[in-house]
Amino acid sequence: MLVPAWQEKANAKVAETHSKIPKEWLISGLALEDAKSQRDITGPYVEQYLSAKEIEIIHNDSTTLVSKIKMREYTSLEVAKAYCHTAAVAHQINNCLHEIMFDLAFHTATYLDQYQKDTGRVKGPLHGLPVSLKDQFHVKGHDTSMGYVGWIGNFEGIDDPKKVHRVESQLVGELEGLGAVLFCKTSVPQTLLMGETVNNIIGSTMNPHNTLLSCGEGALLALRGSSVGLGTDIGSVRIPAAFCGAYALKPTSNRLSYRDMANSNPGEPSYPSSVGILSTSLDAIELLMKSILSTEPWLRDPKVAKMPWHDAQVASSLARAKADGSARMIHPLRIAFHWHDGMVKPHPPICRGLRMMRDALVASGHKVFDWDPPSHATTQRIHLSMLQTDGGHDIHKQLRLSGEPLIPRLRDVLAPKDPMSIVEYQDLVLEGRAFQEAYLDYLNCTGGANGQPVDAVVMPVAAHAAIIPGNYRHGAYTGTTNLLDYTCAVLPVTKADKSIDTFDEIYIPMTEADRINWQDYDPDIYDGAPVGLQIVGRKHEEEKILAITKIVDACLKARNGQSNGEAAFWKDFHAPPSDGG
Amino acid sequence: MLVPAWQEKANAKVAETHSKIPKEWLISGLALEDAKSQRDITGPYVEQYLSAKEIEIIHNDSTTLVSKIKMREYTSLEVAKAYCHTAAVAHQINNCLHEIMFDLAFHTATYLDQYQKDTGRVKGPLHGLPVSLKDQFHVKGHDTSMGYVGWIGNFEGIDDPKKVHRVESQLVGELEGLGAVLFCKTSVPQTLLMGETVNNIIGSTMNPHNTLLSCGEGALLALRGSSVGLGTDIGSVRIPAAFCGAYALKPTSNRLSYRDMANSNPGEPSYPSSVGILSTSLDAIELLMKSILSTEPWLRDPKVAKMPWHDAQVASSLARAKADGSARMIHPLRIAFHWHDGMVKPHPPICRGLRMMRDALVASGHKVFDWDPPSHATTQRIHLSMLQTDGGHDIHKQLRLSGEPLIPRLRDVLAPKDPMSIVEYQDLVLEGRAFQEAYLDYLNCTGGANGQPVDAVVMPVAAHAAIIPGNYRHGAYTGTTNLLDYTCAVLPVTKADKSIDTFDEIYIPMTEADRINWQDYDPDIYDGAPVGLQIVGRKHEEEKILAITKIVDACLKARNGQSNGEAAFWKDFHAPPSDGG
Repeated sequence: MLVPAWQEKANAKVAETHSKIPKEWLISGLALEDAKSQRDITGPYVEQYLSAKEIEIIHNDSTTLVSKIKMREYTSLEVAKAYCHTAAVAHQINNCLHEIMFDLAFHTATYLDQYQKDTGRVKGPLHGLPVSLKDQFHVKGHDTSMGYVGWIGNFEGIDDPKKVHRVESQLVGELEGLGAVLFCKTSVPQTLLMGETVNNIIGSTMNPHNTLLSCGEGALLALRGSSVGLGTDIGSVRIPAAFCGAYALKPTSNRLSYRDMANSNPGEPSYPSSVGILSTSLDAIELLMKSILSTEPWLRDPKVAKMPWHDAQVASSLARAKADGSARMIHPLRIAFHWHDGMVKPHPPICRGLRMMRDALVASGHKVFDWDPPSHATTQRIHLSMLQTDGGHDIHKQLRLSGEPLIPRLRDVLAPKDPMSIVEYQDLVLEGRAFQEAYLDYLNCTGGANGQPVDAVVMPVAAHAAIIPGNYRHGAYTGTTNLLDYTCAVLPVTKADKSIDTFDEIYIPMTEADRINWQDYDPDIYDGAPVGLQIVGRKHEEEKILAITKIVDACLKARNGQSNGEAAFWKDFHAPPSDGG
Repeated sequence: MLVPAWQEKANAKVAETHSKIPKEWLISGLALEDAKSQRDITGPYVEQYLSAKEIEIIHNDSTTLVSKIKMREYTSLEVAKAYCHTAAVAHQINNCLHEIMFDLAFHTATYLDQYQKDTGRVKGPLHGLPVSLKDQFHVKGHDTSMGYVGWIGNFEGIDDPKKVHRVESQLVGELEGLGAVLFCKTSVPQTLLMGETVNNIIGSTMNPHNTLLSCGEGALLALRGSSVGLGTDIGSVRIPAAFCGAYALKPTSNRLSYRDMANSNPGEPSYPSSVGILSTSLDAIELLMKSILSTEPWLRDPKVAKMPWHDAQVASSLARAKADGSARMIHPLRIAFHWHDGMVKPHPPICRGLRMMRDALVASGHKVFDWDPPSHATTQRIHLSMLQTDGGHDIHKQLRLSGEPLIPRLRDVLAPKDPMSIVEYQDLVLEGRAFQEAYLDYLNCTGGANGQPVDAVVMPVAAHAAIIPGNYRHGAYTGTTNLLDYTCAVLPVTKADKSIDTFDEIYIPMTEADRINWQDYDPDIYDGAPVGLQIVGRKHEEEKILAITKIVDACLKARNGQSNGEAAFWKDFHAPPSDGG
């Protein structure tokens, strides 16, 4: 049978990427077969290929790595090698990389070690920290295929020698200037517009915690092949984080720079995706936000809002310093819980996660509320329309470059159709704005007669833990907060457990979509899948939402006996002096 | 001859507005005839109708008014009456109001006086300050016709009893909460998309400094019928201010709220107009910005950026405190001059204004540069396309409500045509973004090898002082900074003077548009017209650009012997402590 030209090109790309793995890190065919038969490839399974020292290194969170390199406990190069090796294993057993940039990483790390030796100082707050990038970031000398066969070896489908392998996304330069070590680019879904990672170049990336399920680009983090990575979100930072047991922050759009990044339908101005951060820790996310914003990206990217990182602003909204130097909270947190959106109720593990979080907050003295905002049915419709304003013009243009087909899962949803008329489009923009206003009005009135509005809203990221391939159908839990352009953080809460999260035989579905989702739940298949939830704040509340997420995380851990609660959070908290109130 | 129904409706509206002027303020027919024969109706001409006390009151700038009311030197009611009376005269002799809201003003002022008497305090930082509004703001109980006959007596063309006379723009509520006294709404051009004020309801508003010329809605300020007013800008804050000798600030869009305001083609998301402030003083603009932002408008309007007014940030970028409590500048200002845009050179009075400003800055020790940014020809094209993405769909829908025609000046430009396709539209958005990036790159490289980029750019607002009716053709000087969404302030520099600003017979035009504009210049007609210029900074630099504009204003006044330069500015300047540098 004749292999189509696009398939040959894709195969060649896969082989080329593979060839960038140092020989000593290659895994035998037999071992790869074994990996395919495993359900959970995290932890000991992936670590069987690593040295004791490498395992030690990758078990550090980003902030610890940075501080150990600064204190010369590790060199940048040994840290880079540990992460590259882990990522190389992860890629071989789980197909999760588009670009391998180990040479760049070793070169950078060597330079940083020399710099530190020569000057006695670190290059910046991210000195030596390996950072992975979603394959929308342009890094000089490397492809950005974004999963399109037609983009292999060129610049977004164009053979302009001034641009091919020469364009650098602004954020890439910022990270390098801060001392980060870029070492790989992670896989993406074809078109980007899907909650599971499949494309015609690399095939599928599966969920490392449960290879029966799909994942999004959080796979590398789950295998600790990266401690912190950058992605973009019309759901695609939060979904992979929640599915893979990672932490994440989706800032309001244009808080971080999107300049000179590849994207789907980049000319659509009113439903922007947002650059965000996935990590194994919340401290790492804060470190990256703070470091990146210290470079004042708004001076270089005309879309970025002029907003430095406001530690003090958040601090003063949460607590006051006491005379003895410790802090006291101004008031308990006021957290609302959005149990379901009235269209599709989450599966039992997610519902249990929500209850666990509520109970943990109540146990720590915080206040909780129910949440009944303007209907997500509106945003569901706007979300789907906004993704296809051009009738798929951009997507199909990119596919035609190579002749590759849409992957089967997308053939119906993204079949080419007539673009929207501009009058319809502008009506849609106005509908979106009306929803944003109604939602904000609702938020503002949650305080009641004398109360303060809630500080944040907890909601599902999706109606299920990680997804059975082909079953991702309901995007309203992420789409709503994209339309609102609100700040969202994700944190892992628990894992699906077939002994507790049983199938509810007598549940009466609210809608047909709910019925389908309800029937998709299989306790055996989901067993072990991470449960992540999102904590949502207003626009541009990245500082506050990260602080709240840390508190919630501490409350959850205290409830599980893993920590003594918020104490750790408040220990490092620099509250402003009391105003006597 | 039969009067068309729309004309009758317009006439009735004019009569109804007129009927809201108290009888004792009406001007005789003879006197109105006399007014028509005047070239300059400002100052003594308008003041002949006012009492000595009223003249005294309206010669205060906003900040002085607020402080005199606070000190009980004036009551809010007498201030309101003085401004209402002046506005009533201005309207009768120059047709500059759409809505007369004197009853509301007297009611508010009476309440404020009582409040002050009862509590011993003022209601807010704008207590008693009369503020005029462009007729896009909805005020309860009043029409917002925005110059459309079809909007008289309803809500934006719709007869919804829940909305008619019941909707209030967010900013209106904010102003009232701060203690402002709203007293009138000023006239606008039909469709808003034009640099001169004509519509089928009120006819034309002319330039009070020179009634041969048109004006935009700064007419009321020129007659001191208001000390501060709110407008919106895709040019329409800066153009009327420059034409009428007023100060103005066009902030970056969504720094102030646009929520629940009427607009042309409100669903166009990528070329937004921006709410701005016109005033007789820069202090008033700062007072309003600071006061309005103190209400945290981002909590209520989802589009507003979360950016409090940053006094300290600006202060620290300009100066350090000295040990004796005075301030020293960190470095002289670095100001670039955009002499012309390569398409249409400004008339002699504007060129002279630019030179005057340069000389004043140099004389005060500041540094000046020439400015040669990416071509405004690009923005000219994008600007014109963006104003008509829907092919005039929205405009013609509003005109059809009453059957009124487009005014003659707009018939060719805004004739209905096919809406743009969404693919074209998105390409246009990308072109705009590329221009923003190129412009920012240019700005960033103006510092040279070791230098800092310029602090601001001075450029014309238009290629002429106020406009001969029908001759407004070249919008690139404002359109470019709208596309960039940059901060712009306007200040008056001088007035056209036929004895100096002579016609340059031997000038060789750069383009056909330049030739037409050059030939439009007539020293006799323009004699006495104000010359205003804009001072442009990056996005979200309202604080810094206002401070710089105050310095430039002081330098200009020093040069004219009107002040001793920057001393007054620095006197009140609260610089942060020196960092030892």
